[in-house]
Amino acid sequence: MKYQLYYWPGLPGRGEFVRLALEEAGADYVDVARDDDEGGIEALLAFLNDQKNPMPPFAPPFLKAGKLVIAQSANILMYLGRKHHLAPANDAERLFANQLQLTVTDFVKEVHDTHHPLASSLYYEDQKPEARRYTEIFLKERVSKYMGYFERVLSHAKGKKFLIGGKLTYPDLSMFQLVEGLRYAFPDASRRAERRYPLIVALHDRVAERPRIKKYRASNRCIPFNESGIFRHYPELDG
Amino acid sequence: MKYQLYYWPGLPGRGEFVRLALEEAGADYVDVARDDDEGGIEALLAFLNDQKNPMPPFAPPFLKAGKLVIAQSANILMYLGRKHHLAPANDAERLFANQLQLTVTDFVKEVHDTHHPLASSLYYEDQKPEARRYTEIFLKERVSKYMGYFERVLSHAKGKKFLIGGKLTYPDLSMFQLVEGLRYAFPDASRRAERRYPLIVALHDRVAERPRIKKYRASNRCIPFNESGIFRHYPELDG
Repeated sequence: MKYQLYYWPGLPGRGEFVRLALEEAGADYVDVARDDDEGGIEALLAFLNDQKNPMPPFAPPFLKAGKLVIAQSANILMYLGRKHHLAPANDAERLFANQLQLTVTDFVKEVHDTHHPLASSLYYEDQKPEARRYTEIFLKERVSKYMGYFERVLSHAKGKKFLIGGKLTYPDLSMFQLVEGLRYAFPDASRRAERRYPLIVALHDRVAERPRIKKYRASNRCIPFNESGIFRHYPELDG
Repeated sequence: MKYQLYYWPGLPGRGEFVRLALEEAGADYVDVARDDDEGGIEALLAFLNDQKNPMPPFAPPFLKAGKLVIAQSANILMYLGRKHHLAPANDAERLFANQLQLTVTDFVKEVHDTHHPLASSLYYEDQKPEARRYTEIFLKERVSKYMGYFERVLSHAKGKKFLIGGKLTYPDLSMFQLVEGLRYAFPDASRRAERRYPLIVALHDRVAERPRIKKYRASNRCIPFNESGIFRHYPELDG
């Protein structure tokens, strides 16, 4: 079965957490909004606005898997994780994987709000002083709270190599993306902060070396970070 | 089995979405931080800070179910839903229930940010002008986007009475809480907005009339809204 991933073209965004799982799984998928043969962005908008759809997604990303349509990154990852052996095998650990992924979701929203603290519908340029105040506290308090938490989870994990159960599961792929994103958005602050979470950095490096991830990142399927995404580099925010 | 719910005492907050499911299920549970026999708030803090716990929660609410510890509201509700027949029976609808609940989570975070747009660690009083700008846009754009979406889902549901599959599932309980919370926080804006989502209001009323919910809300287990929670009433914000 060929999956159809629907996400905004031109930015890694929340779609990237799903792409990393699809790529690590070696799954067959197409990135609809970036593929004219699939209808491109118009196909995404048409699906989103289809008033006859009884189970519509609220927003991208969403994934079509045969007749299933699954929205919300963490929900898609839970589905793909089970299907492609990227989730733990027992219930307790599976619930924990979902919990970790939902904590990633929360963190990603806070990262987004560093450049859009007042409203997504306003330009960054219209909320710059607020973005500076938000980000100052974010870098001081929130990065260490979230990354410190994930570091703590890793410190208890079997072998300390992956978050759960001694083998790679989907939240590990998201850790990779968090480290990449923070480095892109806040290079100075990240360099200082990373000393406090060496296990996460080692996990990041381990994921980066996985053959399928390496190949993906060297391909044009992988969209570089830019200033339309979640992780944006505005030098004035990098405390 | 008696569940132990851990949540901050003194506010309904995110814990309330879990409480409503426990109550509707008629489940046996104790609200640890509000119960001195269970150790009260100290028991919550001790559990949260236990550095030896290999699968720690990031934040309340979390639920102990025998040996399981489940954190993140949507994750807890997914677990309780299956256990207590408050979730749909088939996979597609179960994924959709989780998606709806995660959309509730996103909305709740935006509601929280109406009074704390810059940082949770600052007082509301230290971010009042920003809260006003945030809330103005929130009430104009976000309430209608989210509630319009849920209304659209209801309009397609069998019998239009519940969100999924013609019977009550856990996201319906959260809809009740969203309506209650918006009415409390923004009475004027809600009165105007509710005309645009009559099916949600009818669902709210239907949930309010369920015997266990009615009994719960009349009991002292139910904490009234107040200005420590997610939904806070600051008249200056109610556009």
